[in-house]
Amino acid sequence: MAKLYVIGIGPGGEGLFTKKMIDAIHESEVIIGYGPYLDYLGSLIEGKTLYSTGMKSEIDRCKEAIQQVDEGKTTSIISTGDAGLYGMAGPIFELSTGQDIEVIPGVSANFAAAAELGAPIMHDYACISLSDLLTPWETILKRARKAAEGDFVITIYNPRSKGRPDHLEKIVNILLEVKDPKTPVGIVKNAGRPGTERTITQLDSIDYEKVDMLTCLIIGNSNTYVKDGWMVTPRGYENK
Amino acid sequence: MAKLYVIGIGPGGEGLFTKKMIDAIHESEVIIGYGPYLDYLGSLIEGKTLYSTGMKSEIDRCKEAIQQVDEGKTTSIISTGDAGLYGMAGPIFELSTGQDIEVIPGVSANFAAAAELGAPIMHDYACISLSDLLTPWETILKRARKAAEGDFVITIYNPRSKGRPDHLEKIVNILLEVKDPKTPVGIVKNAGRPGTERTITQLDSIDYEKVDMLTCLIIGNSNTYVKDGWMVTPRGYENK
Repeated sequence: MAKLYVIGIGPGGEGLFTKKMIDAIHESEVIIGYGPYLDYLGSLIEGKTLYSTGMKSEIDRCKEAIQQVDEGKTTSIISTGDAGLYGMAGPIFELSTGQDIEVIPGVSANFAAAAELGAPIMHDYACISLSDLLTPWETILKRARKAAEGDFVITIYNPRSKGRPDHLEKIVNILLEVKDPKTPVGIVKNAGRPGTERTITQLDSIDYEKVDMLTCLIIGNSNTYVKDGWMVTPRGYENK
Repeated sequence: MAKLYVIGIGPGGEGLFTKKMIDAIHESEVIIGYGPYLDYLGSLIEGKTLYSTGMKSEIDRCKEAIQQVDEGKTTSIISTGDAGLYGMAGPIFELSTGQDIEVIPGVSANFAAAAELGAPIMHDYACISLSDLLTPWETILKRARKAAEGDFVITIYNPRSKGRPDHLEKIVNILLEVKDPKTPVGIVKNAGRPGTERTITQLDSIDYEKVDMLTCLIIGNSNTYVKDGWMVTPRGYENK
């Protein structure tokens, strides 16, 4: 029976590919993904049947993957990061009709970003996407407030785009009602793939113009501090 | 100058090792970790100087790593999952004194567990450890309540041990004040390494006796449902 692999390829750099992911690609006849993500796979996809669509055609890609498997072809559908976080695993299971599916986890963008910054997550954290294409904006605002009240480290995906230039600032303003304005904030662009840029600033000093869709933000908890250019959230062993 | 690699090896199975992690181990003269985690590395550590201590001696391991680097030996200190989540990255940066440090991210246990369950995370989520060795129990209770109020998917680490047999039940009782008792819950033991076991149940029906320290729980949000034995949190494309 043909298999459907739902693969998180990690942030994009081949250094964070996993053996399991590479084996699944080798085993697959068909590889499906957003075009620029397929490019990350380089020579791994030589000789494969490729199917790619634009950024917002996730459902088309999922339907194509399911159809290819139903026609007997083992198929991989790829996401960057982990496929189970804002990736293709959800829509695949929503649309599936009994196919033989295996999800292969990958290194998610927030941990790739964290590694560039030092140890900013370390402890309990909440991950929030600011994209309101599929989530009511009121829900996003509420989650940001609850995460701040719980003193979670907060990682933010999809912080800003042309269609929503002021979403991040609105969220930060909510966080500032609860959190110390000097809370460290790490900003990483292209984490874990070529072109990485990282900055450490504080909650009341974010340069919003430098943030785009390829950026991940990590906002500390009440114990997070900066040391030697690294952002550190303690586990509690030592006092800062 | 000798380097200090702080490595997340993923859940333990070699299928989720990354190339970057393997290269760092090869480059290192000294490998430091909790004994059973070193065993996961198998033949990768042949010929290396090894230093291991018991589960609760993290600080001793970090001090040893820093000392080895100061003596000119490139050293890797390992965590399972990602080193930046309840791992060694935090204490290393807390104790560091200017060493050349690189963090190599890994596949974290919650995503390995999610992959076994289908697509239970998918959307905004909060990750909480129930270990109160370093965190006040009141803080943990508050975070659980805020995460529930924010309708986050909730992943739970360190749910239960001999020293805290009823922590998970206390947390679930708080969640039940906010969340639907029929909310799907995925329970995965040994995710991403040999001996994986997975169960899907609901919030008011958890068999606490089957949960131990090697178990990760994923509790759905208000949209999560079960389909064909998989746990699925939709992104919003399709109605359930």
